[in-house]
Amino acid sequence: MDPDLSRLDDYLDETGVDGYLVDADSELSDQYYLSGFDAPDPFVTLYDGETHLLFPRSLEFGRAKRESRADTVERYVDFDHQRLVGEHGPDEAVSHVLAAFLDSYDVESVAVPSRFPLRTADGLRDRGKTVTADTDSVVTEIRATKTGTELDHVRTAQRANEAAMAAAEDLVAGADIEDGTLVRDGEALTSEAVKEEIEVTLLRHGCALDETIVACGADAADPHDRGSGPLSAHEPIIVDIFPQDKSTKYHADMTRTFLRGEPSDEIREWYDLTERAKAAAFDALEPGATGADVHDAVCDVYEEAGEPTLRSDERTETGFIHSTGHGVGLDVHELPRLSPNGGELRPGHVVTIEPGMYDPEIGGVRIEDIAVVTEDGYENFTEYEQTLVV
Amino acid sequence: MDPDLSRLDDYLDETGVDGYLVDADSELSDQYYLSGFDAPDPFVTLYDGETHLLFPRSLEFGRAKRESRADTVERYVDFDHQRLVGEHGPDEAVSHVLAAFLDSYDVESVAVPSRFPLRTADGLRDRGKTVTADTDSVVTEIRATKTGTELDHVRTAQRANEAAMAAAEDLVAGADIEDGTLVRDGEALTSEAVKEEIEVTLLRHGCALDETIVACGADAADPHDRGSGPLSAHEPIIVDIFPQDKSTKYHADMTRTFLRGEPSDEIREWYDLTERAKAAAFDALEPGATGADVHDAVCDVYEEAGEPTLRSDERTETGFIHSTGHGVGLDVHELPRLSPNGGELRPGHVVTIEPGMYDPEIGGVRIEDIAVVTEDGYENFTEYEQTLVV
Repeated sequence: MDPDLSRLDDYLDETGVDGYLVDADSELSDQYYLSGFDAPDPFVTLYDGETHLLFPRSLEFGRAKRESRADTVERYVDFDHQRLVGEHGPDEAVSHVLAAFLDSYDVESVAVPSRFPLRTADGLRDRGKTVTADTDSVVTEIRATKTGTELDHVRTAQRANEAAMAAAEDLVAGADIEDGTLVRDGEALTSEAVKEEIEVTLLRHGCALDETIVACGADAADPHDRGSGPLSAHEPIIVDIFPQDKSTKYHADMTRTFLRGEPSDEIREWYDLTERAKAAAFDALEPGATGADVHDAVCDVYEEAGEPTLRSDERTETGFIHSTGHGVGLDVHELPRLSPNGGELRPGHVVTIEPGMYDPEIGGVRIEDIAVVTEDGYENFTEYEQTLVV
Repeated sequence: MDPDLSRLDDYLDETGVDGYLVDADSELSDQYYLSGFDAPDPFVTLYDGETHLLFPRSLEFGRAKRESRADTVERYVDFDHQRLVGEHGPDEAVSHVLAAFLDSYDVESVAVPSRFPLRTADGLRDRGKTVTADTDSVVTEIRATKTGTELDHVRTAQRANEAAMAAAEDLVAGADIEDGTLVRDGEALTSEAVKEEIEVTLLRHGCALDETIVACGADAADPHDRGSGPLSAHEPIIVDIFPQDKSTKYHADMTRTFLRGEPSDEIREWYDLTERAKAAAFDALEPGATGADVHDAVCDVYEEAGEPTLRSDERTETGFIHSTGHGVGLDVHELPRLSPNGGELRPGHVVTIEPGMYDPEIGGVRIEDIAVVTEDGYENFTEYEQTLVV
């Protein structure tokens, strides 16, 4: 994948710094995106119009030359590391190596991510370099707009996600009801058992295990609760799955709410309302609209039905108590935001739409699709039907 | 789990700083260890003899009060965050909140991990606080010595690991041989298929998916290659599994080398030599010995047999080309080191012993156990037999 880094060039021009520097392993998505290289240990990427990688050891050197998108790949040893260790000790030697690496590209000043390692920054400053934290997260901003290849990666992850959701739905739909509890093969069907089935299905589809939410009753009323224990009949079960494709590293994200048995009138009403809120959000989803516009569309639906939202009451603990959605890509939560402070949406933004209602006395309902903003609206990647009673 | 932080108290006394500050999510093991709290988003931990947590939002507040080992749990809102945002903007407001949080404990100077976020450090410095990177990694040092509870967690993860290894061995042992390739049910048995079986088995045992190595032929000669494609008969297959228990977060680590068919004389010799090298390492493993002593014992065995090691030739790309082992705990690679610069071993250190031989022309052989250093030697946690030909 070859990202469009012209906005990073603009950023360097505007801020007047010579380069953008990252020191992290590829778990940091900005590092993976900028370097095009997947490595478990920290390495350094310098972008100055070209991309330059620097590795502490030789171990990843050959693979980085083959696999990364860098223009140059170097090692500490190329900057006299052993001599510098003898002269300055192992810690300070690293700052001399990094300064020499920057010198070799005539780089005197760098912008770095906000969470750039302090010791590296202080070491470079000791060597006379100017190091400034980029509070605008420019690479994260750039990553929000996906290329066609990246969109394909999200679609692929979403197919795996739907297979896992089907496995979960089958378990719930096939359960018997005994004393108000879901039962399979004579044993209580637990959140843990459903999660295990989801995770194994994802694994069989090439996706990494991430956390998964299968939450029922009061658990489901806390949007961050992963759920545990036996699942109840006649109560909504929130199933929220957000897998990462192991080969591409891109995520998908989807939520469905299932119920085995008879829903109360209130739950039926919540579900219908949440379906309408989701539709309203999609109606508002187009380039030029803001994330705040889409969020407002959801709040309108809930508030018109008399339900509390964080917009109408910032202290409410029931009702619609989170934002409408978020970007999805190398990170499961990334830009843009579909929330009160969400900025302008652009073609290529991949976002979730996930309205929901919560009350510890009643439970939770959430429905979540994943879609991409297009030139003339959006394309919904989600092909999974939404049915409450299964 | 209640860690013994008396060495952190000593560190604060010796360095004369008022507190130790971490700003990270609990993926950073030092954060998880110090806070006793598992959260996906960054939060701040201050240790000043007591442990104080600070969260940006209220979302994790209740759970942190229940689950963490902290003496106090607070939120940005407790330090006038909204007003500060209005006054200074969202970025600078955070540094005012953090400074007020430190003020409330009379903390003027902090030591922080080397990879502490630059923006946080610079913000605190702007508010007059002294922030110094701890290049000694004192919390990582403390974590190297395990409590009885932590040892139990590693043992439990190792039982899951052995179930996964058995699944891998069964696949290899049960394969037919056609044209020099391993075949099951008429299809080539691939590295990917064996890894999937390992991963599903780990999942069924409550362990998180991590990367796994199933490498054959030239792949196996690169200790960092994860392996891919059809597995060959008559060649050693390195299977290296390092799972993380999902509930405790502790790891295990084990490697076996399997061969289906007829090994060459050279591979038999390598395997015997590696068994002897492993035994020599265990003979040297005791409190008071250094990681370097154990590593030297392995190098002695290989070198006496005329094989190259990095000790005898720092540029060799064949022979014994990595260190003897590493600590295992919340991280799969942590202190202590069993390498040329490995320091003194203490009771409670959990380490791997993993000698191996590599040559792209021949393949690779590695055998790895995991053990704890005890008062009078060691206890090997590994109960899996070692057999080359299966």
